[in-house]
Amino acid sequence: MPRYKLTLEYDGAPFAGWQIQADHRTVQGVLTAAIEALTGEKTLVQGAGRTDAGVHARGQVAHVDLARNWDLDTVRDALNAHLRPHPVAILGADLVSDNFNARTSAIRRHYIYRIINRRPDLALEAGHAWRVPRPLDTDAMHIAAQHLVGKHDFTTFRSTECQAKSPVKTLDVLSVERNGEEVTVTAVARSFLHSQVRSMVGSLEAVGEGKWSADDLSRALAARDRTACGPVAPPEGLYLMRVDY
Amino acid sequence: MPRYKLTLEYDGAPFAGWQIQADHRTVQGVLTAAIEALTGEKTLVQGAGRTDAGVHARGQVAHVDLARNWDLDTVRDALNAHLRPHPVAILGADLVSDNFNARTSAIRRHYIYRIINRRPDLALEAGHAWRVPRPLDTDAMHIAAQHLVGKHDFTTFRSTECQAKSPVKTLDVLSVERNGEEVTVTAVARSFLHSQVRSMVGSLEAVGEGKWSADDLSRALAARDRTACGPVAPPEGLYLMRVDY
Repeated sequence: MPRYKLTLEYDGAPFAGWQIQADHRTVQGVLTAAIEALTGEKTLVQGAGRTDAGVHARGQVAHVDLARNWDLDTVRDALNAHLRPHPVAILGADLVSDNFNARTSAIRRHYIYRIINRRPDLALEAGHAWRVPRPLDTDAMHIAAQHLVGKHDFTTFRSTECQAKSPVKTLDVLSVERNGEEVTVTAVARSFLHSQVRSMVGSLEAVGEGKWSADDLSRALAARDRTACGPVAPPEGLYLMRVDY
Repeated sequence: MPRYKLTLEYDGAPFAGWQIQADHRTVQGVLTAAIEALTGEKTLVQGAGRTDAGVHARGQVAHVDLARNWDLDTVRDALNAHLRPHPVAILGADLVSDNFNARTSAIRRHYIYRIINRRPDLALEAGHAWRVPRPLDTDAMHIAAQHLVGKHDFTTFRSTECQAKSPVKTLDVLSVERNGEEVTVTAVARSFLHSQVRSMVGSLEAVGEGKWSADDLSRALAARDRTACGPVAPPEGLYLMRVDY
């Protein structure tokens, strides 16, 4: 059976996350339904990242096996038609080899986290960024973030629900950039633990407000203790941007 | 009575436009209600631009007279609290002289129109941009747009509902820029006719698709005839960005 790689964009707001669940609207659920509407087949769609409820994607990747050889533009356009009105779009469909696995073949995942650092409520970006009203020292955040880059035991920055066998991960990039009132945290690694990016961003925010020093962040990491983590940043600022293979 | 200048951001989607109407949710309506909730006063809030239903703002300006001398941060924060959950945010409040009028004192209005030029549906930008699936030649659009810059009778690009006395306006800037799949049309003038930006963008889109030449656009302008206008671009791509005084 030919294997298809799908690249997806979605607005996480109306979804209970990526992973299919009975009685909840999920991205994997509406995608599986769209594929069945197109092909008549009951399939298992596997995604590169199980994004949480409210988390967005500009470049989630999934793979699925279909019985037929479909024209790739037809797969993209027909799935988009069947996905309406859900805020999920297939950006591209490609044919891949049977060895390709959206989750296990990924060599790098790119996330960004959007903060809007201002006092007024968000009108246009509501649900698409985290508003932080206190002024953030983003230089201090960036410097502190470098303490998390590299290979570490990230138990502190891992949800208690995380099912990964090992808490040890290698973080390639964690940068903080300001552009006017918009602050972007970029996180790149082969893979992340459950809630790792939001946990790291929440603790970096504490650094930005001056509540934590860079040393406090290092101590939290070294504690390898979930209770040492700062408040977890809300899901609406997080975007899965790209997956490299 | 002290006069206050308010700078506003809003998501136009849930509103029947700026202008207050009985039985419809409008930006002027919810703002007037928030001011009454704060001050107990029934006021007339005047805006720089009467944006249509669905049109957004990042820098709409309004003025209002209040009986008391309020702390400006208090005005901003308290109005934002009273505006919830409407997607309207007061970005700033300033004290201005009695001569200041948000509409008539404006010397320049800046609009942008966002097009996303791609085949897949919009997921994250749904309601915040116009998706155009056919490839657009944005260089041709920009060159043609220069035919509309300057002082002209814009009858062709004016809604039949427009109440302005004269159809003659001076367009300072009309530029078209591409950044990946995103195309931004920027329009700057002292003032615009009703639906003028959306009418010009709709005709420029016809140029981008190759249906119209730059000469066709010039002929449409010279016709001074509303029926010579191309299809009007939808409201969700339009943003009032800034008003200069």
